[in-house]
Amino acid sequence: MKETSEEKLEGSSPRYSELFSPTDYRYSVPDLLPFLSEDAYVKYKGKVEAALARQLAKRGICSKKVSNEIEKAVEGISAEEVYAEERRIKHDVRALVNVIRSKISDEAKPFVHLTATSYDIVDTANALRIKDAISRVVIPDLIKLENALIELTLKYSKTTQIGRTHGQHAEPITLGFFTSFYVSRLGQRIEKISSAIEDLSGKFAGAVGVYGPLSLMVDDPEQFESDLLDSLGLKPSEVSTQIVQPEPMTDLLHSIVSTFGVIANFARDARHLQRTEISEISEEFSPDQVGSSTMPQKRNPINFENVESMWKKFMPQMITVYMDQISEHQRDLTNSLSQRYVPELIVAFDYAVRRLTRTIWNEKSRKPRLLVDLEMLDKNLKMSSDKILSEPLYILLSIAGHPDAHETVRKIVQESIRSKKSFLEVIKSNGDLSQYLDRIPKSYLKVIDDPANYRGIAVEKSIKIAESWKKKLSKFQSNHPV
Amino acid sequence: MKETSEEKLEGSSPRYSELFSPTDYRYSVPDLLPFLSEDAYVKYKGKVEAALARQLAKRGICSKKVSNEIEKAVEGISAEEVYAEERRIKHDVRALVNVIRSKISDEAKPFVHLTATSYDIVDTANALRIKDAISRVVIPDLIKLENALIELTLKYSKTTQIGRTHGQHAEPITLGFFTSFYVSRLGQRIEKISSAIEDLSGKFAGAVGVYGPLSLMVDDPEQFESDLLDSLGLKPSEVSTQIVQPEPMTDLLHSIVSTFGVIANFARDARHLQRTEISEISEEFSPDQVGSSTMPQKRNPINFENVESMWKKFMPQMITVYMDQISEHQRDLTNSLSQRYVPELIVAFDYAVRRLTRTIWNEKSRKPRLLVDLEMLDKNLKMSSDKILSEPLYILLSIAGHPDAHETVRKIVQESIRSKKSFLEVIKSNGDLSQYLDRIPKSYLKVIDDPANYRGIAVEKSIKIAESWKKKLSKFQSNHPV
Amino acid sequence: MKETSEEKLEGSSPRYSELFSPTDYRYSVPDLLPFLSEDAYVKYKGKVEAALARQLAKRGICSKKVSNEIEKAVEGISAEEVYAEERRIKHDVRALVNVIRSKISDEAKPFVHLTATSYDIVDTANALRIKDAISRVVIPDLIKLENALIELTLKYSKTTQIGRTHGQHAEPITLGFFTSFYVSRLGQRIEKISSAIEDLSGKFAGAVGVYGPLSLMVDDPEQFESDLLDSLGLKPSEVSTQIVQPEPMTDLLHSIVSTFGVIANFARDARHLQRTEISEISEEFSPDQVGSSTMPQKRNPINFENVESMWKKFMPQMITVYMDQISEHQRDLTNSLSQRYVPELIVAFDYAVRRLTRTIWNEKSRKPRLLVDLEMLDKNLKMSSDKILSEPLYILLSIAGHPDAHETVRKIVQESIRSKKSFLEVIKSNGDLSQYLDRIPKSYLKVIDDPANYRGIAVEKSIKIAESWKKKLSKFQSNHPV
Amino acid sequence: MKETSEEKLEGSSPRYSELFSPTDYRYSVPDLLPFLSEDAYVKYKGKVEAALARQLAKRGICSKKVSNEIEKAVEGISAEEVYAEERRIKHDVRALVNVIRSKISDEAKPFVHLTATSYDIVDTANALRIKDAISRVVIPDLIKLENALIELTLKYSKTTQIGRTHGQHAEPITLGFFTSFYVSRLGQRIEKISSAIEDLSGKFAGAVGVYGPLSLMVDDPEQFESDLLDSLGLKPSEVSTQIVQPEPMTDLLHSIVSTFGVIANFARDARHLQRTEISEISEEFSPDQVGSSTMPQKRNPINFENVESMWKKFMPQMITVYMDQISEHQRDLTNSLSQRYVPELIVAFDYAVRRLTRTIWNEKSRKPRLLVDLEMLDKNLKMSSDKILSEPLYILLSIAGHPDAHETVRKIVQESIRSKKSFLEVIKSNGDLSQYLDRIPKSYLKVIDDPANYRGIAVEKSIKIAESWKKKLSKFQSNHPV
Repeated sequence: MKETSEEKLEGSSPRYSELFSPTDYRYSVPDLLPFLSEDAYVKYKGKVEAALARQLAKRGICSKKVSNEIEKAVEGISAEEVYAEERRIKHDVRALVNVIRSKISDEAKPFVHLTATSYDIVDTANALRIKDAISRVVIPDLIKLENALIELTLKYSKTTQIGRTHGQHAEPITLGFFTSFYVSRLGQRIEKISSAIEDLSGKFAGAVGVYGPLSLMVDDPEQFESDLLDSLGLKPSEVSTQIVQPEPMTDLLHSIVSTFGVIANFARDARHLQRTEISEISEEFSPDQVGSSTMPQKRNPINFENVESMWKKFMPQMITVYMDQISEHQRDLTNSLSQRYVPELIVAFDYAVRRLTRTIWNEKSRKPRLLVDLEMLDKNLKMSSDKILSEPLYILLSIAGHPDAHETVRKIVQESIRSKKSFLEVIKSNGDLSQYLDRIPKSYLKVIDDPANYRGIAVEKSIKIAESWKKKLSKFQSNHPV
Repeated sequence: MKETSEEKLEGSSPRYSELFSPTDYRYSVPDLLPFLSEDAYVKYKGKVEAALARQLAKRGICSKKVSNEIEKAVEGISAEEVYAEERRIKHDVRALVNVIRSKISDEAKPFVHLTATSYDIVDTANALRIKDAISRVVIPDLIKLENALIELTLKYSKTTQIGRTHGQHAEPITLGFFTSFYVSRLGQRIEKISSAIEDLSGKFAGAVGVYGPLSLMVDDPEQFESDLLDSLGLKPSEVSTQIVQPEPMTDLLHSIVSTFGVIANFARDARHLQRTEISEISEEFSPDQVGSSTMPQKRNPINFENVESMWKKFMPQMITVYMDQISEHQRDLTNSLSQRYVPELIVAFDYAVRRLTRTIWNEKSRKPRLLVDLEMLDKNLKMSSDKILSEPLYILLSIAGHPDAHETVRKIVQESIRSKKSFLEVIKSNGDLSQYLDRIPKSYLKVIDDPANYRGIAVEKSIKIAESWKKKLSKFQSNHPV
Repeated sequence: MKETSEEKLEGSSPRYSELFSPTDYRYSVPDLLPFLSEDAYVKYKGKVEAALARQLAKRGICSKKVSNEIEKAVEGISAEEVYAEERRIKHDVRALVNVIRSKISDEAKPFVHLTATSYDIVDTANALRIKDAISRVVIPDLIKLENALIELTLKYSKTTQIGRTHGQHAEPITLGFFTSFYVSRLGQRIEKISSAIEDLSGKFAGAVGVYGPLSLMVDDPEQFESDLLDSLGLKPSEVSTQIVQPEPMTDLLHSIVSTFGVIANFARDARHLQRTEISEISEEFSPDQVGSSTMPQKRNPINFENVESMWKKFMPQMITVYMDQISEHQRDLTNSLSQRYVPELIVAFDYAVRRLTRTIWNEKSRKPRLLVDLEMLDKNLKMSSDKILSEPLYILLSIAGHPDAHETVRKIVQESIRSKKSFLEVIKSNGDLSQYLDRIPKSYLKVIDDPANYRGIAVEKSIKIAESWKKKLSKFQSNHPV
Repeated sequence: MKETSEEKLEGSSPRYSELFSPTDYRYSVPDLLPFLSEDAYVKYKGKVEAALARQLAKRGICSKKVSNEIEKAVEGISAEEVYAEERRIKHDVRALVNVIRSKISDEAKPFVHLTATSYDIVDTANALRIKDAISRVVIPDLIKLENALIELTLKYSKTTQIGRTHGQHAEPITLGFFTSFYVSRLGQRIEKISSAIEDLSGKFAGAVGVYGPLSLMVDDPEQFESDLLDSLGLKPSEVSTQIVQPEPMTDLLHSIVSTFGVIANFARDARHLQRTEISEISEEFSPDQVGSSTMPQKRNPINFENVESMWKKFMPQMITVYMDQISEHQRDLTNSLSQRYVPELIVAFDYAVRRLTRTIWNEKSRKPRLLVDLEMLDKNLKMSSDKILSEPLYILLSIAGHPDAHETVRKIVQESIRSKKSFLEVIKSNGDLSQYLDRIPKSYLKVIDDPANYRGIAVEKSIKIAESWKKKLSKFQSNHPV
């Protein structure tokens, strides 16, 4: 995994005095710049213009020479040039067209952008670069995180942990079972993202979607569109206006935001397991690291907090995405500015994925970086060893035919708290129970001897989940080579 | 289509003095009460308890007689009884269990709820009733709306309309092409919802997801869970904690909210097309209807406004849904209250679907209820007939080899505005253009004679879309019989 | 305090089979029905119509007899009648007008609603009833909660608690200091709400805000509006369109939602302090209460969870409120339906306030209901007694002139962890420190003897805050008598 | 007004290939860099450290020489240095402290940051720089926009415009009355923002809010805090934890987001008034500007669209702000990252304010830049001249004693539409009306002659509003000199 912002930005010394957005100086992911920076955006629009020229040549509308000339001109274009022209004419795509035209012969000029409306280029370029960014960087990063969770699951599949509901001790699980829940949730989300990018679509249907200009030149404008987009690896929107249908992008962003929810949930869980009183796991702490500017003893879960905070910042952007589904008639432009911020959401998400991965997993040593305190796990489990027996007791009494087992056990618990006697003592002193207890097979009763036995199929299930996703990942990894 | 709230509630006279939520007295959908009312919720939880008893009997853990007894007891249960018991013990699912137990023999009592945790029942019941509500009511309603849009598309596929981008006249389309964009978007959303409900899952994995209690009784607890859920038409969550994985419900609600965005977009479009100055379409207005309490002449797009307003109210609930993805450790309860409001979101959405359908389509006469003013369509088109020729002219000049066609035409437009001469006049008076115009085939030039000709493949494409979705709907209709 | 939903609804047996919204059957606040139910809404609109008639009489436009007739007719009106008429004519305010007219003489008929547009009535009635609801129910409820927090603060002002940042033990505070933070935040929010309702305004400026109809009858329409609203205890919007300016309501709802955030924060804090491992406080648990349907031993913080969940459900409604600020030209109707849900937000908030109050305070016995475990508070504090000395040590060393005290102490902590020696032992074994320690006055060093001494002015400050808000509340209580 | 991004960034050539956020390369406001850039943030934190040193000197805890040394060291610090150190030790505030310490004598070293916790510095610095940014840049910018709206109001106070409700012609207003609604709303919002920044507060209460470290040195730690903050122009939070109370910042951001709603509403209104069919106003279009890359005739409301889009992007950030009100116990860090994005919200808002101002007003010529088409205003008004008489007719008939005037006029309108006769014709042909019409004073009837007369007090009221806010602004302008 290449390193994120800190290292990279050191090299390029970001001009802190010119930047407002932490995404650009603090939480940047340099690996995504070739896809999601403004310069990349211009280059992807250029790619689409080049594909159009090639398609025009294929249809004999212009010569191969002309299309080659355009294609070559496109390659060298930078955002700087285009912005300079935009400042003059106040139209970003026409600015790009003018810059291309300035680099080619008069013969080639008429064929640049011919029949296209701005959003044929813009929407297609956006679908393309976002698909590339996710396919080549985000999914590989997610796979690394998933792999780390799988390894943690396998390593700790048999480490008993007290399960907690409502923040209260409930029944035992294992630490690996805890992480296997995330292996499963994250794995399925990766599949969702992977399938959502396949639905991203481009368009080449002109200013209002009816292929007006193309119809002046070819008899099969839909085929022209389909061939052109196919050459870029995209499919067309079933029907467009000036813009592609917004739903495929909405679905993709939902798939990302909902994946963000999964990793924020893990970060929240981990953060609480690091509470001083619980201390079952904690973030690694480097020797030079400072925990607090004034309390030298502090060891804070700053990475887990950071991941949750990133989620809080970017999750609400879905409101913007949902509002952007509404565009008046054949489109208004009120989704233009707002959509320029979509790449940032992807960067922020990927940053959080990488940061969480680094926090729990050491890529170089292929070992967990997350610290696990086995003593505390055991100590916490023992705190409630007594009371967690009440569930199996109630079940066993029921099977043995006790007509009111839940209520009876509930009262035993209250008696145990009131009298400060141990749970087992109270059970044994309750004569009414013996007739039922006698009916229960000895082998079942072993869970009452040691609460750690009462963890159901936590071990087997966590291993099964981990192994199953390990296999599924191989499929993805071949599709998304790092 | 059965009628919504107004008619129904007339019969039952809602107690306006006891109700706060407009969903209960103003925007109710009585057809959804059997699934999404509080009483329905209790009944669905009962169904799951009955399924559990049957499964225990199948495994020989209790007798068939016992499971029959439980199943029969469950049938008669009402929300009133359960709420009365909940007031006493402050636990909703245990209250249900107590009510069931109060109706059966001592022999059967131990087997009610045996091995289940509350959320085995709650999550499974919710998945079930929401799936039923959507499958039996919401999707059939969506299909009716889709059918209405298809009929509108076919009827107006050849009715030329000026296309608008940025609220400005752009190039011609047809009214049917305008609606076909919604046929396509809505159709695809219906598929999305339909697929999302298939992913809803139940669980029977106990208090912390490790099948603790079940493991005391059977060797294959996952199979037990799978059989039980299968008998209800559901599949299990791959791995659960106390609760099912939240993502399938999150995906479903996203599919609904994003569909809401599509119909809100249609409502917004229609509302603006009804503006006094545009007046291409309008809502039907009944003879007794009052438009304004003070301006007797008013004809307001109140239904389109209502649909958009409903979207504004309920779309932000996705924030709650995303926040509810996060539940601490094996679950905290902070998603409990908030999830009780999920059914309301579905009701509100379905209300909007029905209201929009009624506004554009008369189910009885099988004719559009939406009024279309052909004269205004024509008048608006003619307003810009001149200027909309600039695009085809620029394209044709480009094909004819003009090196700077876009800029040339842009100046012709400005000259036309400045001099108040018609566009064609300015073209003809521009000697430089004749050399290019002469090269253009006569057949192409016909678009310049009548702008209505310059609508590309609007007619063919809109018909193709409509026919294609008509076919796809038959598949759905057989799956979701009304 | 009157009781909330459960008790009340028992009496009136809500028809669970007809209701979708939990606000109507589960989280209702009957005390708010006279203001925020649909029936109350109709009655408040009637009040405004009556005030108009009185004002017309005052100006001699109609006779006093006529205005009396109208006023009397208004009194008996119910939502049922108005809804019946609305079903016929599809306009809610005109329906009200028709119902009033049906009860009066032909002579009086013309003066009902004369010069008013619907929203003169609607916006004014909403401002009025929301102001009443908040002033008479919500603020008194908030004062009760604030009083409970004040009493907790005074009771526990000297009970030392370990302060926590990042979930990690930091430095000591007191339990009363913890609650005093909420006394201060909640107190200031109550002031905010109280000031926000004073800004709610009505209007009587006609269909587009220019007083067209009124200008036909009086020379000073603004004075007419101002007198009319003054008779209802409201002031006019500085300038209106068809509707009042949205910002005063937006500000009020912000004040409520941000207060909701404060109590949700308290609920979150309390919930975590009830974690099994921390157990410093917990909710009271009644003898009949069931904690879990399957784990008889559970004691869950269900009330704290409920409050946080309510916040998660209703906080995002601010998005709707912000979207409703935008209404096109002299108004579109897309804020109509959505604003009908504003009262529910207030009900939900008030429900949460009452529930939290009941959870921490017993109104009848005037004693805390929140359970505090002094042993656990002490045990938790002692866990870190050693390490929390590092801050004062670093400060004292700095004062004594140590040039690098923070770094030195940070290393002592690491050494203490590594060597498993106590913090004080490591300090004493560090010869370099003695020269600095010797310079520190003995009186200062006492904090190093007992970490409980190192709690700054927690005691004094918490008492000061509590006493100060006690005084401020008297002002409010006289303004908002319960 | 200094120019925004385009010009400035041209000079500094943003590295498009390294930036993700449009706020940094496309919508930047260079005037805000001295307050809201990352470099500014470091400098403001330095200012607070310097103020602390001065305060320590004032109390005799360190010498004046020491505090001078620290103050001088602080001045030269850049974000680059601090980031370099942070990379090493992973703590941002301690990094700043280390950098300061590296520039001063050993004697001075112990007094840097003495008694402070990171958030004493961070929260105070943030309150300070945001207060400065708003006071010195944002409010002056808002005043310019308000002034532009006032000038438009005065210029067009008598220009009759048809008022619109539901997008339908209602009754006449004036163009100046339309803008006066925004003068009033924006004016009041400016007051709100101005008052909200006064509530921003700092803190100096240590790691958990109880003044632990300060108490080791001074007897009156609250006074020390108050003096220190006073020297920076801030007041303290009534009581803090590690952080200031979140509500003052929440209120400020609400005041900004709700102001954003006001200008977004104006942009929406203006955008629709520019629709081809309405065309009452439009954005200026420069000679070189390109409207569409393919439709040379287009004149799009791109600036109004941009403002609305910016609102859509940034308004939902309030969700993050509301979530950040919740911080666990004496604080968790999950608001740290998210709050780093608060400055960007202010930048985006200010950008929109400036862009809207430039669109409607030419600062140099002191003249409107917004184009108004008087012919279209007149033409649109005339479209409905007939029917808008129905309201005054209904009012006048009512005054004249007609018992059912609204219904009668409603039917006249329907008859007029049905028969295609003019409204006046139908009235005159209705014999039943003459008895009432005869009773109406002639002077009142003049509104029926010319609908433009029926605009109530639009002219007087709009002028009154404009003049009143002109006066109020002088107060602000002296407080916020540009």
